Amino acid sequence: MDTSVKLSHLEKMQFETELNGHKITIDADEKVGGENKGPRPKPLMLLSLAGCTAMDVISILRKMRVEPDDFDVEVQADQTDEHPKHYHKMHVVYSFGGTDLPLDKVKKAVNLSEERYCGVSAVYRKAIELTSEIRINGERIDE
Amino acid sequence: MDTSVKLSHLEKMQFETELNGHKITIDADEKVGGENKGPRPKPLMLLSLAGCTAMDVISILRKMRVEPDDFDVEVQADQTDEHPKHYHKMHVVYSFGGTDLPLDKVKKAVNLSEERYCGVSAVYRKAIELTSEIRINGERIDE
Repeated sequence: MDTSVKLSHLEKMQFETELNGHKITIDADEKVGGENKGPRPKPLMLLSLAGCTAMDVISILRKMRVEPDDFDVEVQADQTDEHPKHYHKMHVVYSFGGTDLPLDKVKKAVNLSEERYCGVSAVYRKAIELTSEIRINGERIDE
Repeated sequence: MDTSVKLSHLEKMQFETELNGHKITIDADEKVGGENKGPRPKPLMLLSLAGCTAMDVISILRKMRVEPDDFDVEVQADQTDEHPKHYHKMHVVYSFGGTDLPLDKVKKAVNLSEERYCGVSAVYRKAIELTSEIRINGERIDE
C-alpha cells in the first residue's frame, strides 16, 4: 500500500494524527461525549473533495494565465436518515470572482478536474450522486 | 442539503475552511507550487474513514465497559497509476493495547462499526475494495 494515515486515541473521543507533517486533532461533539477539540471525521470527506478539485482548478487556470480575484469551492451534501448514516448526494459549487473572467477557460478547468484529474470525485462518483455548478460573480452559469 | 463545507482560496495552492469551529488550511507540496502550509486534500479521505470508525469503536467499547490502554486505527491505501489517480484499495488496521482485553467484545465493536455505524466506509465500500484486520498487543487476530 502506498499511502497510510495512522490515527491515535488520546482520551475520551479525541484522536490525533500527523498528515504531511501537520498535527490534526479530531473530536466528537459534546452530545456524544466529545469536547470539540477538533472537527468531526465525516465532513472531512467533503473537505477532501473540495480541496482536491479546488487545487486542480486553480492550477489549470494558472497554466491558462487566468487568475480569479476570488475562488471558493463549496461541497453541499445530504445524508441518509438510516444507519449507517452516510452522504448519498453531493453538490459542488465552484464560485469565481473577478472581471473579464474567460468563461470557456473556467468551464474547461472545472471539467478537466471532474473528468480527468480529481481522484476524490472519481471514487465518490462510483458510490453516490455527484453534481456541480459554476458561479461567476454570484451568477450561476449553465454548463 | 444538510451539511456543507466551503473552502476558500488564500494564495498560491493554499486554501482555508472552518469545520465545526476549527480553521483548517490545506496546501500542495513544493513540487506543484505549494508551500506545505497544511495537509494534502486526498489523504483526508483516509483520515475521515479512520476517524469515523475509530470513534464508533471506542464509544461501543465504552458502553461494554472495555477501555483499552492504547488504541489506534491505520488506514493503508493504494492508488491507481492512471489519471484520475485515486485510491482503489484500502485496508484498515485496528490496533488495541492492554491486558485481558475481551476478544469477542473487541471484534463485535469493530464489526458493528463496519456493518452498521460508519457512514464513511458505507460510501467507500460501494466504490473500492475495503478490507480490515484487528491487532491486539501487536498480534493479528483472525476474524
